[in-house]
This record gives sequence, C-alpha cells and structure tokens, in this order.
Amino acid sequence: MTVKQLPLPVLVEQCVRLGIPGIGLWREPVREYGAEAAAALVRDAGLTVTTLCRGGFFTTDGWEEDNRAAIDEAAALGTDTLVLVSGGLPAGSRDLPGARARIADAIGALAPYAGARGIRLAIEPLHPMYASDRCAISTLDQALDIAERFPAEQVGVTVDTYHLWWDENAPAAVERAAAGGRVHSFQLADWTTPLPEGVLNGRGRLGTGAIDLSWWAGLLERVGYTGPVEVELFNDALWARDGVEVLEETLEDFLKV
Amino acid sequence: MTVKQLPLPVLVEQCVRLGIPGIGLWREPVREYGAEAAAALVRDAGLTVTTLCRGGFFTTDGWEEDNRAAIDEAAALGTDTLVLVSGGLPAGSRDLPGARARIADAIGALAPYAGARGIRLAIEPLHPMYASDRCAISTLDQALDIAERFPAEQVGVTVDTYHLWWDENAPAAVERAAAGGRVHSFQLADWTTPLPEGVLNGRGRLGTGAIDLSWWAGLLERVGYTGPVEVELFNDALWARDGVEVLEETLEDFLKV
Repeated sequence: MTVKQLPLPVLVEQCVRLGIPGIGLWREPVREYGAEAAAALVRDAGLTVTTLCRGGFFTTDGWEEDNRAAIDEAAALGTDTLVLVSGGLPAGSRDLPGARARIADAIGALAPYAGARGIRLAIEPLHPMYASDRCAISTLDQALDIAERFPAEQVGVTVDTYHLWWDENAPAAVERAAAGGRVHSFQLADWTTPLPEGVLNGRGRLGTGAIDLSWWAGLLERVGYTGPVEVELFNDALWARDGVEVLEETLEDFLKV
Repeated sequence: MTVKQLPLPVLVEQCVRLGIPGIGLWREPVREYGAEAAAALVRDAGLTVTTLCRGGFFTTDGWEEDNRAAIDEAAALGTDTLVLVSGGLPAGSRDLPGARARIADAIGALAPYAGARGIRLAIEPLHPMYASDRCAISTLDQALDIAERFPAEQVGVTVDTYHLWWDENAPAAVERAAAGGRVHSFQLADWTTPLPEGVLNGRGRLGTGAIDLSWWAGLLERVGYTGPVEVELFNDALWARDGVEVLEETLEDFLKV
C-alpha cells in the first residue's frame, strides 16, 4: 500500500533488486491480477507474501461471505496471515460495546475456517480516531481479549506503531501478545501532524514524526518477534510520487530507524 | 467556545434569557474584556462562571508564569475550576513517557498555588489523536494517576465525552474519579466524521454523532456528580452561523440528550 502506484510485477521486480524479501499485499490489486497468478509471480521471484490486507468490517452486512473469500485468497497467495480491520459502529448505532461483541462473535465464526486453511487472523487495533467508522477495536489489549478466546494459530494481533504509539499500556500488551505467540504482524508508520481531512492518508515517512520507531522495533525484538516487519504508509503525497523512488526512500528510512 | 462569535455581554444576556445558569469562559475573551469586568458582568446577571479554559501546555517554555496567571484570572473571575490541556511532545522530542512525567511535575508545582486561591485544577485527557501536539494525557486513568498525587481540592479531572467515548476503561475511571471527589468538570460534545483537516474544529452537535450522550449523562448522575454540565463544541460551521441561533439550538439539543 505504501507504493500502491506500482503495478504488481514492477513491485516484485523492484523488491528483488533492493533486497526486500517479502511484501504485504492488498486484496484489490491481488483480485485484479488474479490470486493464483499473483502467488506465482511473487513465489517465482523468491519473495514471500507477508500478509494479506484485509478482512474485517464485521459490523456491516455481508461480512461472512466476504471474509471467507479473503481467507481463501490468503491461502491461494501462500501467506499465513490475514489482517483484520474489524469495522466501526453499525449505521445509526451508538452502541460501541455492542459493536465490539459483534466483532468478537464474527471472529469466532471465522477462526476455525481460517485455521483449517493455514491462515492466522491478525486483529488490528486501529487508532481511537477510527472507532466510529472503521474499527471499534482501539487498543492492543482489546484485540487480545478477543484473540485469546481462540487458539493462537487461528487468531492473533497486528501491532502497528501508528495506531498504538500513544497508549501507555501497549508495550505491556505487546509482551502479553508475544507470550501467547499472537504477534502475527508488525507494521511501521510514523505519526505526523497536522492530520489531513478524513485522517486516513496522512501516515508519516519513518523517522519524520512523533513515534520512537527504533524503540518499538527493539521492543518487538526483546519479546522474541522474528516475523516480517512491514511498512504501511497511507499517504497521498507519497502516492503522487514515482513509486520506485518512494520504495528506495522507504527502504533507506527503514534501515535508519 | 461553542458560540465564540458572541461578545461576552450578549452571551450573558442570552444565557439569562434562555435560563442557562452558568458559562465556561476562555482566557482570551476574558482578557480582552478584563477579568474583573467579566466577573462583575456575569455575577450581576446572576450567572456563575463554571470553569475557565485553559491552563496547561506544560511542555513548552514559559508554562509556569502563564499558568500562575491563569490561576489568578480564574480566581478573579470567581470560578473554582481551571481546565488544563497539558501539552504534547516538546519540539523535536519522541519521548512520550518523558512528556508525561514533565506534565506531572508541572502540576505538582502549581497545585498548592491553585489550592491557596480556591482554584481546582482539572486535568483534561484529550483524545489520543492530540497526543503529539496538544496533550500527552490521553485517558482518564492517566489523568487520575497524576491527580491522585495531590489533594482533591487542588487537582481533579475534566470528563469530556468527545475525548473519552471510545475508551472502554473510561466508565470505570469516571467512578474512580467520583469516588475521590475529583470530577471537577463535565463537558459534552458529539463525535462526527469525517474529521476535518487538523482535527480540531469538527466536534459534533449533541445528538448528531456516534456518542451515546444520554448514557454518559446518566453515568455522571449515577456516580453522584452534581456540578455543571458544559457543552463545548469547536466547530467551524457553528461559528460561521448566528451565535444566538446556535445557542438556542444547543440548548434544545442539550435537553434532548
């Protein structure tokens, strides 16, 4: 998503050239390219698909069919992890605890289906500024409270610095997640202000914002996380630029932090 | 602030006409009018000044002199409460725990000065989307962790629905605050999306957003809060309209929720 302007074959070629060993993919470009063809393209280049983004939106109609399809697509891609953005309040509702209960129920309905296909669901707590319209799961502890009802090989969490950096309880929650083998995804983005209208596409280049990303990387290392580290920047300014240049720059930023 | 387009004498006159018994004032208009003159204007109309907004910004230079002045102004106005917006990260810093420690130290330095003048400091946790640039205190529990180091008549908290509604721990924290006699201010605003650029001036009219405001009002009643209930809407669209009309509409919204 950081370089969504790059067609999949170019992205794969450039990752190989730069020594980037894996890529997280999003469903829309994968569907356009075809899941089987995308899987072959990435695999033949010697790369891995780190995660598929995203399932979720459990508080809107049609969630079950859509999420089973997402699990199937993840399996076809050869990744082991589907990231979940759980959805906000149902239309017209003000019942946040109710939305959270509905999300937990939906994940319970999907977990065995995912596990049977070798896919781990990774509940991603989103920043509280998205609680009403994108994700009612706002903290890592909330995500773990749900995940821990299921086997770790079925349900875990996504640790994304952009969403969690402000939370003084998040570091302990990372330890809790790691102790249970539930850190299924780790993503980096920096926090920069002012936030843009709609607050969706203003994630900062690594090292340009308020988050001590090196500290977070160290924390994940200390708790024994050895999985991929993704960089996920939703950023209109980056998307308007040359994708290869942004990819190179992102790799440099990544190595610095 | 909801009707900042109204000059203070008009605001006072209209509050009297509508039966609104008190108003929360901001420092800038009070300074323009003169604190003593503003105090006389409000008092002579039979209204109370519910709070003065705001002190704080403890992570920037000059905080101590400015906050002592704010406490003096609050005392001159005849209110008993100064709301604190504590400030974000110091320029160039990524040390969020350090900023929080600095805030706690600053409040400790001010608390006796405030108490001696009959002013209660009300630490306001702001929504986590302001953590970097306006307020590193993001939850009611964090605010209470600081407030409880001092006597309740010196330091308490502000409960603002806009900032706290997403936090599943906030209701228990309200009970904790009330048990200690530390709910020094209660403010209402609704959460509406999309958020505007800068995320400052998009607070929703009561009843138009995602927050179950009646539930929050009921919670404050259940825990024994009997103080004023303020409506604080930062909203460019409301500020662009006729202030008296907005005041009337806000009162109607308030009574409905």
